[in-house]
Amino acid sequence: MRIGVHKVAMANPSDVSGLERLIDSGAVDPREIVALIGKTEGNGGANDFTRGFATLSFSLALARHLAISAEEVGRRIAFVWSGGTEGVLSPHATIFTRSAAEAPVNGEKRLALGIAVTRDLAPEEVGTMAEVRLVADAVRSAQAEAAITDPRDVHYVQVKGPLLTPAAVADADRRGATLVTRDPNGSKPYARGATALGVALALGEVDEAALDDTVIAQRMDLYSSVANTSAGGELRNCEILVFGNSDQAGGDLRIGHAVLRDIVDAEAVHMAARDAAGDPAVQPQIDRIQAIFAKAEAPANGLLRGRRTTMLSDADIHYERHARAALGAVLTSVTGDSAIFISGGTEHQCRPGEAPIAVIVKL
Amino acid sequence: MRIGVHKVAMANPSDVSGLERLIDSGAVDPREIVALIGKTEGNGGANDFTRGFATLSFSLALARHLAISAEEVGRRIAFVWSGGTEGVLSPHATIFTRSAAEAPVNGEKRLALGIAVTRDLAPEEVGTMAEVRLVADAVRSAQAEAAITDPRDVHYVQVKGPLLTPAAVADADRRGATLVTRDPNGSKPYARGATALGVALALGEVDEAALDDTVIAQRMDLYSSVANTSAGGELRNCEILVFGNSDQAGGDLRIGHAVLRDIVDAEAVHMAARDAAGDPAVQPQIDRIQAIFAKAEAPANGLLRGRRTTMLSDADIHYERHARAALGAVLTSVTGDSAIFISGGTEHQCRPGEAPIAVIVKL
Amino acid sequence: MRIGVHKVAMANPSDVSGLERLIDSGAVDPREIVALIGKTEGNGGANDFTRGFATLSFSLALARHLAISAEEVGRRIAFVWSGGTEGVLSPHATIFTRSAAEAPVNGEKRLALGIAVTRDLAPEEVGTMAEVRLVADAVRSAQAEAAITDPRDVHYVQVKGPLLTPAAVADADRRGATLVTRDPNGSKPYARGATALGVALALGEVDEAALDDTVIAQRMDLYSSVANTSAGGELRNCEILVFGNSDQAGGDLRIGHAVLRDIVDAEAVHMAARDAAGDPAVQPQIDRIQAIFAKAEAPANGLLRGRRTTMLSDADIHYERHARAALGAVLTSVTGDSAIFISGGTEHQCRPGEAPIAVIVKL
Amino acid sequence: MRIGVHKVAMANPSDVSGLERLIDSGAVDPREIVALIGKTEGNGGANDFTRGFATLSFSLALARHLAISAEEVGRRIAFVWSGGTEGVLSPHATIFTRSAAEAPVNGEKRLALGIAVTRDLAPEEVGTMAEVRLVADAVRSAQAEAAITDPRDVHYVQVKGPLLTPAAVADADRRGATLVTRDPNGSKPYARGATALGVALALGEVDEAALDDTVIAQRMDLYSSVANTSAGGELRNCEILVFGNSDQAGGDLRIGHAVLRDIVDAEAVHMAARDAAGDPAVQPQIDRIQAIFAKAEAPANGLLRGRRTTMLSDADIHYERHARAALGAVLTSVTGDSAIFISGGTEHQCRPGEAPIAVIVKL
Repeated sequence: MRIGVHKVAMANPSDVSGLERLIDSGAVDPREIVALIGKTEGNGGANDFTRGFATLSFSLALARHLAISAEEVGRRIAFVWSGGTEGVLSPHATIFTRSAAEAPVNGEKRLALGIAVTRDLAPEEVGTMAEVRLVADAVRSAQAEAAITDPRDVHYVQVKGPLLTPAAVADADRRGATLVTRDPNGSKPYARGATALGVALALGEVDEAALDDTVIAQRMDLYSSVANTSAGGELRNCEILVFGNSDQAGGDLRIGHAVLRDIVDAEAVHMAARDAAGDPAVQPQIDRIQAIFAKAEAPANGLLRGRRTTMLSDADIHYERHARAALGAVLTSVTGDSAIFISGGTEHQCRPGEAPIAVIVKL
Repeated sequence: MRIGVHKVAMANPSDVSGLERLIDSGAVDPREIVALIGKTEGNGGANDFTRGFATLSFSLALARHLAISAEEVGRRIAFVWSGGTEGVLSPHATIFTRSAAEAPVNGEKRLALGIAVTRDLAPEEVGTMAEVRLVADAVRSAQAEAAITDPRDVHYVQVKGPLLTPAAVADADRRGATLVTRDPNGSKPYARGATALGVALALGEVDEAALDDTVIAQRMDLYSSVANTSAGGELRNCEILVFGNSDQAGGDLRIGHAVLRDIVDAEAVHMAARDAAGDPAVQPQIDRIQAIFAKAEAPANGLLRGRRTTMLSDADIHYERHARAALGAVLTSVTGDSAIFISGGTEHQCRPGEAPIAVIVKL
Repeated sequence: MRIGVHKVAMANPSDVSGLERLIDSGAVDPREIVALIGKTEGNGGANDFTRGFATLSFSLALARHLAISAEEVGRRIAFVWSGGTEGVLSPHATIFTRSAAEAPVNGEKRLALGIAVTRDLAPEEVGTMAEVRLVADAVRSAQAEAAITDPRDVHYVQVKGPLLTPAAVADADRRGATLVTRDPNGSKPYARGATALGVALALGEVDEAALDDTVIAQRMDLYSSVANTSAGGELRNCEILVFGNSDQAGGDLRIGHAVLRDIVDAEAVHMAARDAAGDPAVQPQIDRIQAIFAKAEAPANGLLRGRRTTMLSDADIHYERHARAALGAVLTSVTGDSAIFISGGTEHQCRPGEAPIAVIVKL
Repeated sequence: MRIGVHKVAMANPSDVSGLERLIDSGAVDPREIVALIGKTEGNGGANDFTRGFATLSFSLALARHLAISAEEVGRRIAFVWSGGTEGVLSPHATIFTRSAAEAPVNGEKRLALGIAVTRDLAPEEVGTMAEVRLVADAVRSAQAEAAITDPRDVHYVQVKGPLLTPAAVADADRRGATLVTRDPNGSKPYARGATALGVALALGEVDEAALDDTVIAQRMDLYSSVANTSAGGELRNCEILVFGNSDQAGGDLRIGHAVLRDIVDAEAVHMAARDAAGDPAVQPQIDRIQAIFAKAEAPANGLLRGRRTTMLSDADIHYERHARAALGAVLTSVTGDSAIFISGGTEHQCRPGEAPIAVIVKL
């Protein structure tokens, strides 16, 4: 296995010219594309349609190259978009390819990627232990597909899952099923939290005995340090992407992670890069960083190192937008590259106020 | 002369409790307060009333302590507020005191501050050479008051001046006077630019022969590296605060400056701090930084180090808000303190795309 | 008793020139001012400081005229501000005077106003039956002060009460007290709802037997048709203004009310004006309307007469802003005057989706 | 000729289910679709991608039904989208069909529609007399295609044309060509204005002798009362849709127009409906209105009937959004239907402060 990582700029949410150039130049074989993780320039909220526009545009482009339908592209390739390029963040897509045959490098570990999906969830399962267990199973499958034996070699697990839409609430009502909440927006913490706990369970970060329905979105001392989860109304099932290093993978890329202690923690980039290099004695050059995947979290109570921020009380700009703007600029000040994947909502993803960051480096 | 620098947090635009504590504890003698520079949590636009609310609140508080009217406080003390605490920026005020008697330190230079005002400008003078010359004269007066002999010892000149309001345009129309523009918002670049060129002229950064009405807001290769200017509809004249180091000043504070090469230039903080320390061989500890005053500028064409940002095309959030969020987070990531003065609009203040940054350090 | 109603335009939140002119011209005796209800041009959210700025500015102006302190003005005069002048809405203040001596008009009823306050509430009382009963008592007191015998003569009850701030939650935590919710924003529906039910209880619109803690913000079939309530973090007690018609009042003003069936219900203005005129056979001329006080409510599920609106899913503009913009324009299209008091949040104020509207007319 | 008018609701910008149902039920023959005019729920600004998403989605759907490519659909069918459904406005598309054979009705006039395009414009032609003349020629062609002899039978001319993009400016620079402005946003008034004057010229509303380059976006006493123009960066040429009544058209629809005196002019709906009915003695029932097409214009200086609005000074919400929210609610209060086409920018479209409104009624 060899994982390719190709970052392309986007001039707008429907701009697939970067992908086209990669394919036309032979740099990417469209048949090897397995996933795409990107940022679009919408507001990141419920009425952000740039994500859907980007998915449709990339699906149509790949459908042409693969001679299949756009719908079939959607089944074959995992699309993960986060809306909101506040501050200096730059709209882009990181395209992941996986080629089957590549000799491993003398037992050394290299970047590996596995993907799995759960079955569709019933509304009453969203945000519950049922979802935790389904995600945990899928994480294990994806980890196996990535040929990663040791959970400590998993550095980044991206999960997309369903939230409770008005339609889902109505469906549950008809059947008399009980939901974790009847508020669609209020279901996000449960949905993101349950999938994060699924990752934590699969990787041994939390003990199954510590888990039950009541801890979800409540017991914030239970968490995964490598989960990065989101919830969207367009999904019925969960999609899981497990990134790590495997001795079955070849190439010259490795991944590592660290914890952002707060939203201006520039040092975490260096720590994640060292973690990716594998040998703490070897300081990888910052310009070897190929991609960053992080979560931006507003400081608890809005206080950053003792100073009041105003992001939580701002009625004009959502706090997630403030948070992405801040973290995006800090990470860019370290690497010089503002094409970074940053999204919001960290329930059970690191400790409250902290957030995960994963970095892929070229050796 | 000794300049005192006191930063107080603000829980809202009318929160003067920090000032009250400084006075009550004896740390600040209200009779010695000469200026206040701060950030309020409004949107920074035309309908941001947090600045006026803060001025009124601080004026009332000081009126009580000084037993004078709030209007008299406004004439005695220079208030400079910038609205907009995007990202992690924290609402605060930095209060400057000046005490007459303090022995200089063996000929060493310490932080000094001089203040001057111009006469009221006629609308047809705003954004013209008339304003440039009036500001230049006032800068020289303020520099003299600060007892700074060498212009190279001036590191930060804050200027507030008038813009063209609808009322000013109507007044000019009645008198048949010609204006640089009839568009109130469009007058800001001229107003900020003319005052910045006034600073540049006074400090010898540009030659008077190079200046005429046509270069203002046009010839961007003419600029000051230490000017930080703003324009507001509430002003008729210009207020100038000249900060530098003087051998007539005592105390343990010094000021320095640097140029932000772009909006994520973290290194500029270190350069400004070294400049403030006076001896490039001495690396001042970052935690000795007492205050930062900077401008945030959107990258030219929206491109940051080759990557497209979306701040210039965002119809929901003004690009100055994106820019402040980004720079504020970057500077905070260096110092840990998010109570930083950052405002927008850099016409003739450093080269296009660049911006000034000044830092006060404790030796 | 004679109630005077004086509407003044405001050029900004600190503009008291309209009030000054009323006083200087003798049209208003400042000693007779008892209340002020107005709209300011902020965003209407948690970080809208235009309300506080306006209160401070009007308090300072009246303090000068009354030769008392601004704090004493606040205790003597009820200030009710709502932020947000979306669409065509115009910032303004309606100033109410009350003069003691004025002969009633042959037993006919004229505009009357009574004001009362509750004691301070403990955090654990906010949004509970304790608050309902305190408000009900205060409504009865204010009604008595207004010399209104029949509850059917009450047409508009404006209530301002406390919500749960982070400080209030912390205080309750220290004392082990149980709150209706620990979410400050989430406390608004309880706070607005409990005070509205207090009005309904006092006026006999609901039966006390139907009320207990569990119905508040839940049983929306219980409501007042004349309550207009708001909740703010700056308050500890509730202020109640009862407007109606009394045979003990003189002058040429009357008040009436109606129910806005939805947010574009122009006909309700006519109904309220007819109600104010007292005689359904007499159609008052629309240009006799002196002031309108209404609530804007988003349509249930966002559906207006079967069409989807996007106000509930908009992440850029809060739905209350969309709602005020819509209703404000509709009412202005009827009367031609955009200086209307419209605020948001209608828990237990009319049926869900409906909202109250009160109109003062000159006979 | 018979023009069909079919309004479909959209649950999101890519929702083509309404169109699909029309086709599946046989109500619409996809081969007869010639134009689509609709509102999407973006912010209406430069970063509003909902329009492009809708165009792509409808093009794909029609490509399937017509067995042609999506690009071919774009060449065959005119798409006009306006972003921004503020207040109560509802996202929707009005689909226009044209069937060739339909007997006229005894010499009576019925709704007719003609479409024409200009050649591509060079950047230096945008906003100049060259554009005015090209548009005038295209309006005459479209009018002829609609079989409308008398210009007074034209009631609504929708024009989409190019604005100056950064790429267009760069292209002109390379060739040394002179532009009306180098500011992309600043080119909108010229672009919308020139196309509106083209309509006015074709319909005889202005005399060609009165026109030259200097009057465009300046001499606002020159205007069309039926033009409704927009400018977008995605276009190189101008698309013109001419709606009127023709004695060569059959069916039971007619169109009329009126002038909105200001943004709360509810009466204009009635006037336009009367105009559509053709006989001023016949008052058409409001519920016979099938579709409304209007422009929303902020009041001059922000003053509405003497009252200050805050839409022009709001830095959080663009004034066009305030204006659409206001007018949309007023029109909905008359008709009950919030699926209305309202867009912004009225240069040379009615007098300053006024705006055009067209109404299609069923007889």
